[in-house]
Amino acid sequence: MTKYVYDFSEGHKGLKDLLGGKGANLCEMVRLGLPVPPGFIISTEACRVYLRDGKPPVSLEAEVDEHLSALERSMGRKLGDPANPLLVSVRSGGKFSMPGMMETVLNVGLTDASVVGLAATSGNERFAWDSYRRLIQMFGKTVCGVPSFPHDDKADPRELVTRYKEIFREHTGRDFPQDPREQLDMATAAVFDSWNTERAIIYRRQERIPADLGTAVSIVAMVFGNLSADSGTGVAFTRDPSTGHRGIYGDYLANAQGEDVVAGIRNTVQLDKMPAQCFAELKTIMSTLESNYRDLCDIEFTVERGKLWMLQTRVGKRTAAAAFTIACHLVEEGIIDMDEALRRVSGGRLAQLMFPRFDDSERPEPLASGVGASPGAAVGKVVFTSAAAVAAKQPVILVRRETNPDDLPGMIASQGILTSRGGKTSHAAVVARGMGKTCVCGADSIVVGEDSFVVGETTVREGDVISIDGTTGKVYLGEIPVSASPVVQYFDGTIDAEADPLVTAVDKLMRHADGVRRLKVRTNADTGEDAARARRFGAQGVGLTRTEHMFLGDRRPLIERLVLATSATEQRAALDALLPLQRKDFADIFRAMQGLPVTIRLIDPPLHEFLPPLEELAVKVATGEGDEHDKELLGAVRRMHEQNPMLGLRGVRLGLVIPGLFEMQVRAIVQAYLEVPGSQPEIMVPLVGAVQELEAVRSAATAIMVDEGLEHHLPVGTMIEVPRAALTAGQIAHAADFFSFGTNDLTQMGWGFSRDDVEGTFFARYLELGIFGVSPFETLDRDGIGRLVRLAVDEGRAVKPDLKIGVCGEHGGDPESVHFFHTSGLDYVSCSPFRVPIARLEAGRAVVLADGTSDE
Amino acid sequence: MTKYVYDFSEGHKGLKDLLGGKGANLCEMVRLGLPVPPGFIISTEACRVYLRDGKPPVSLEAEVDEHLSALERSMGRKLGDPANPLLVSVRSGGKFSMPGMMETVLNVGLTDASVVGLAATSGNERFAWDSYRRLIQMFGKTVCGVPSFPHDDKADPRELVTRYKEIFREHTGRDFPQDPREQLDMATAAVFDSWNTERAIIYRRQERIPADLGTAVSIVAMVFGNLSADSGTGVAFTRDPSTGHRGIYGDYLANAQGEDVVAGIRNTVQLDKMPAQCFAELKTIMSTLESNYRDLCDIEFTVERGKLWMLQTRVGKRTAAAAFTIACHLVEEGIIDMDEALRRVSGGRLAQLMFPRFDDSERPEPLASGVGASPGAAVGKVVFTSAAAVAAKQPVILVRRETNPDDLPGMIASQGILTSRGGKTSHAAVVARGMGKTCVCGADSIVVGEDSFVVGETTVREGDVISIDGTTGKVYLGEIPVSASPVVQYFDGTIDAEADPLVTAVDKLMRHADGVRRLKVRTNADTGEDAARARRFGAQGVGLTRTEHMFLGDRRPLIERLVLATSATEQRAALDALLPLQRKDFADIFRAMQGLPVTIRLIDPPLHEFLPPLEELAVKVATGEGDEHDKELLGAVRRMHEQNPMLGLRGVRLGLVIPGLFEMQVRAIVQAYLEVPGSQPEIMVPLVGAVQELEAVRSAATAIMVDEGLEHHLPVGTMIEVPRAALTAGQIAHAADFFSFGTNDLTQMGWGFSRDDVEGTFFARYLELGIFGVSPFETLDRDGIGRLVRLAVDEGRAVKPDLKIGVCGEHGGDPESVHFFHTSGLDYVSCSPFRVPIARLEAGRAVVLADGTSDE
Repeated sequence: MTKYVYDFSEGHKGLKDLLGGKGANLCEMVRLGLPVPPGFIISTEACRVYLRDGKPPVSLEAEVDEHLSALERSMGRKLGDPANPLLVSVRSGGKFSMPGMMETVLNVGLTDASVVGLAATSGNERFAWDSYRRLIQMFGKTVCGVPSFPHDDKADPRELVTRYKEIFREHTGRDFPQDPREQLDMATAAVFDSWNTERAIIYRRQERIPADLGTAVSIVAMVFGNLSADSGTGVAFTRDPSTGHRGIYGDYLANAQGEDVVAGIRNTVQLDKMPAQCFAELKTIMSTLESNYRDLCDIEFTVERGKLWMLQTRVGKRTAAAAFTIACHLVEEGIIDMDEALRRVSGGRLAQLMFPRFDDSERPEPLASGVGASPGAAVGKVVFTSAAAVAAKQPVILVRRETNPDDLPGMIASQGILTSRGGKTSHAAVVARGMGKTCVCGADSIVVGEDSFVVGETTVREGDVISIDGTTGKVYLGEIPVSASPVVQYFDGTIDAEADPLVTAVDKLMRHADGVRRLKVRTNADTGEDAARARRFGAQGVGLTRTEHMFLGDRRPLIERLVLATSATEQRAALDALLPLQRKDFADIFRAMQGLPVTIRLIDPPLHEFLPPLEELAVKVATGEGDEHDKELLGAVRRMHEQNPMLGLRGVRLGLVIPGLFEMQVRAIVQAYLEVPGSQPEIMVPLVGAVQELEAVRSAATAIMVDEGLEHHLPVGTMIEVPRAALTAGQIAHAADFFSFGTNDLTQMGWGFSRDDVEGTFFARYLELGIFGVSPFETLDRDGIGRLVRLAVDEGRAVKPDLKIGVCGEHGGDPESVHFFHTSGLDYVSCSPFRVPIARLEAGRAVVLADGTSDE
Repeated sequence: MTKYVYDFSEGHKGLKDLLGGKGANLCEMVRLGLPVPPGFIISTEACRVYLRDGKPPVSLEAEVDEHLSALERSMGRKLGDPANPLLVSVRSGGKFSMPGMMETVLNVGLTDASVVGLAATSGNERFAWDSYRRLIQMFGKTVCGVPSFPHDDKADPRELVTRYKEIFREHTGRDFPQDPREQLDMATAAVFDSWNTERAIIYRRQERIPADLGTAVSIVAMVFGNLSADSGTGVAFTRDPSTGHRGIYGDYLANAQGEDVVAGIRNTVQLDKMPAQCFAELKTIMSTLESNYRDLCDIEFTVERGKLWMLQTRVGKRTAAAAFTIACHLVEEGIIDMDEALRRVSGGRLAQLMFPRFDDSERPEPLASGVGASPGAAVGKVVFTSAAAVAAKQPVILVRRETNPDDLPGMIASQGILTSRGGKTSHAAVVARGMGKTCVCGADSIVVGEDSFVVGETTVREGDVISIDGTTGKVYLGEIPVSASPVVQYFDGTIDAEADPLVTAVDKLMRHADGVRRLKVRTNADTGEDAARARRFGAQGVGLTRTEHMFLGDRRPLIERLVLATSATEQRAALDALLPLQRKDFADIFRAMQGLPVTIRLIDPPLHEFLPPLEELAVKVATGEGDEHDKELLGAVRRMHEQNPMLGLRGVRLGLVIPGLFEMQVRAIVQAYLEVPGSQPEIMVPLVGAVQELEAVRSAATAIMVDEGLEHHLPVGTMIEVPRAALTAGQIAHAADFFSFGTNDLTQMGWGFSRDDVEGTFFARYLELGIFGVSPFETLDRDGIGRLVRLAVDEGRAVKPDLKIGVCGEHGGDPESVHFFHTSGLDYVSCSPFRVPIARLEAGRAVVLADGTSDE
């Protein structure tokens, strides 16, 4: 018969699946001989049976009886005994901590009868009735869904108990249960049920936590920090979770219960103000825990009449800076090795360290606080409409109650976005993250009006300057100086690794990652300047040069000539004029990369993207404002207008339809190659869906290489960005020297939505519904798009075992996606210059994570 | 050592791979004891070696020596012997006949010396010199690429020989070869080389013929039909290839060579005008050939001084009507069984029989002739511009030199399209086929001007009426009566199967197909009327009802209300007004289908498709023509404008974002179901890419079914039209009662091009380059999109073995695609009503073809 209940002495920290995180850690502390109040755990297996059958397993009641009796024996008290009652806490605890689940009911076992016993044994009547009041309140809310109990600190707790019991009866239609065992069973069932609250379900969908894990229930004898002056409660960290510096760190509150600390109602004091003997014992315990967990530990404890009790421990959360610092300190202290240190940091954390930030020394009190929805630091004048943002000549922060698709132009024009409503999945948050724009959402203390917003007494008017911190969610009045991240300065070579302890740690971990990683990291760069910076950031080549930027700015008239050409001669002349300009652009990048490989993508977007928009031209011509040239242009734009330009005449299609276009580009590449000795260009064909397309371009390119007198031909490869290219990769490999995944287009076409059109319209709703856990444009969707990637790698390599394969979509710099590319066997990832260090770190982590596991 | 040369006695008709079609059939005739001039065949293997190494296999020369000697011995003459020369023909012949390849060189062996011998032995000097002239001409053109020889029927052939030899020298820089064996070897090499002419390469790409098959070369002793009055040449068919009627059929030309018949220079006579004994012998041979090939045979023969020689035979080409009639006749005659008969017809042939056609009795001489690029019969007034076509109030035919994307509106507005330039892959042809519009291309005898076109002496002006036949490519002046196809009348039930012999044959074959097929055939129908017609055509249900048509016409204001609604109440009111209208539409279809299943797709296109276009509104408002409502609409259209609506807020996304929209539709379906007893609705969710989307819609639909009091819930399934849906079909199957492939969207997204945008821009070029053999919107691309289909079927059924799977894209009515869907294990295909019989026939053929092979 399955065993469903475990005593603390029967578990250890490895049993999180079965006992939940909290429960497993309690067992571990018991195993280490630490003072933990006795108790037992109902396993996640029991929960799974309950969720399946709608009732607990038959044998559970007897098992709980047995363990409860043992607990009563060890405490010398009986649950809810009117004379000398044992009280217990009931807590949920799954493998992963999960918002939306019922958390805790304290003081289970108190009844009208036993409260008298507690008063007697504690010698503190107010304490006993206050404990009973707390039980009715917590039990009412979390077990029976009573919406709220009016709070009144001044009232006599005995009166509050009477009032709360009435409220309980009103809402539930029954009396507050007076059978202690019934209280315990109802609390247990409520914990099980809370697995399926809507919020918990959505959270699991978003975080890809399996829906069938279930939660465990810990039942622990109550100890009280609010019994006397030599009682108290506190939290502690074995290192500073904010900086990572060595030395213990925590808060203590005398004569209080844990929830008082969390609620922040009273001011806490330093740990050394707790009873001296307890503090000494706590320090010893902390050291024991660190050696056992080999990491920063986060502890909750209670002192009852001078006796220290450990209520909870876990590996502690920490800031990004602390993560890097602690990992390196633990290596120095001989506790972990470098591989393990690398497992404990992450690219996401490194990215946080790279954003510009507000100068810490100068930071005033925040004006308001919201959700840090898209990181960074932004300063600007307040505007309240998209139009004002677009019209502004100086940096602005767009402030809205919430944003909608109409606000897109304004969001693009702003330094940052601040909203008073919505969370991490709101329209503003999703769009801002997509744009890499600083955003604070849901700062609900501000009231947004037409031309001002109000926070309490303060009114902020259009044109006033504010500063917003997209990492912490803080909003400040006035301009706060923004300073570059020291980590970026280090990557840029303007400070060295010893300049700052954090940088020292980052440097050490980056070196280790570079030492172990198999994936190479390249960059996406369109200019020599970008390429040079990326090389300083560690790029081992350019994985994507987009050639279309060379068609913008003062070269626009040349494109107009090309588009409006009515004869092959005119077309030829336009292309001839572009050739030397393109040659120079390529030569600049080759020089900047000093012999590293540079992949150049032939022109991808449709040509009409370089002409003015249809609506603008049509209105100009209709109102008589346009001249003859505008009319001619309008004709061309109408002719070339596409319903769905993303799915239109672009990429290789354009190259095969407009004679000489690709050929001009290939010639410019070949000539630039001849101009820059040692350069390593690779020619990449975009949007190939069929091997025949690639063959056609390849043979034209070969003819040009022969014509330019090349002895060794430059490699010609293809983007794999059209789903069909992935599906026929085995055919395409025959004509390709390399593959480079364009995961952005692959995602757009594979899912059938265009990023421009949908991020603002339904992504927020989809994230809310949990249809996505994360936007598939941020992190590669493994099940769908990833399947195309794996298939193309496998079938391409089956044909050409040495086929070089990389990725140059934006996913190339996303931590989770980098791991996927590593395990899929790619040779390199390519990403924007700023993401290069993140990709390097994650490429290293991908190797060491395959060899072990991490708590991070 | 590989054998490269085969005597005719060494082969048979099964060896087409090795000996080519022509060669294998010559061997077969020898095997049957028929009078074939002796000869031998150089195999395709020799060609493959030649193409690989750039020279013939080493042993080939000796083998040819040996077979040539044997040939000389059997003929008692030596190749090019000045006294009594043996002459041979040299012909190419691959497994598949292929335009663009070198075809034939006759009279090889004639030289300045041997022409004298031929004159002597034939006793006909003019004949001998004329034969020599023909050799220089054919050899010059096809072996040495001399562009042309001036033709002069009146001139003395001896003079022509002198003139042609000069032209030969001028163009090739050498004298016409006087070594007969050199002539033979050069001709052989030229045949090998012609495998790789550009036209042949493109043809192979288009027809998906492997590039490495190579061609065989037949070398046959010449016999002459132009030697005397009792000589002659002819072609014959064992049945009428035009009607399929029994009885031999052919043409004979006395004192002539084969090329004269083909060139049509002289008028042929009936076969019974040939020498009586030869005619009798030919009749016997025909009967032998039919029993052997078990099909209509097409024969080329020559009579040399009263002796009949068979030069070629093959299974003969025939019209669509003949195909059906012959197949049934052969069954009646006990020569083949019904399965074989079914193999010999095709859905493509049936489609030809279903187009409306010109009344045969009344057809005048055609005015001009071009390529039948898109079948059907169209009559209308001539217009020369797209604008005139759009403006016309009566049926028009758009006449253009060639079309380009600017002409699209005019093509849509016309009954048919006529161009003077371009072939089956021209812009006009591709677009017209896509639209199902009658089109004749490349009628190069017409000269298109600004407001008239000229053919010879005739001038046709704007407004004159013409008739064009898109099947035959013929153009007629004036109106020719168009009559409905008897086959369609039969399907419609207005005539019965005995009314017409062709219809009798079609009926018999359709019944057999219905008897053997496994695939069910449904129809796409949006109205009760369509559904009723499709049921008469044999549809076994509706596979796709698009609900969006119900949002058009006089219901447009309701959609505007929905889109412009600023509150949930207004939105609700708009939806409430739509509910009864939708319910009626659904009930109509349910009634028409009389209990057969009807799949209804929830709304798919983005809502702004129901509003006026942005450019139009913007100009209206900018010029002050618009009213307040237009301004409000413009605001909405701008807000909802999408860069790529195909990849935007549509389908299930719309359903999840606009509250109540899908719910209203589901309620209308459920209520219509309750209203029509015995109806079988199936609810289909469009554009699903992730199982979570389907789960969300499914649970909302279930709630409505419960609310409406349904005991048995209606099935809820999903389109598989987003590539990711196919890639995650195993997940999606958990939430789906059925799958229906939307192969149009699957093709668009899988290839990354939108049909609307690209058919007119680059498809013509792609077909020309052979990148496509056929548009992937016509015939499903098996390698790419088909792979997604197979994968989704396999993984969906792995989860739910009984999962019902169909297809409702336009491919559901394409013959080749139907075979693919059969072998992929689908349960049904669904197509437009007119395509239903085609799909039924092909679904049957798919079964019998799996059991045998056909020559069709």
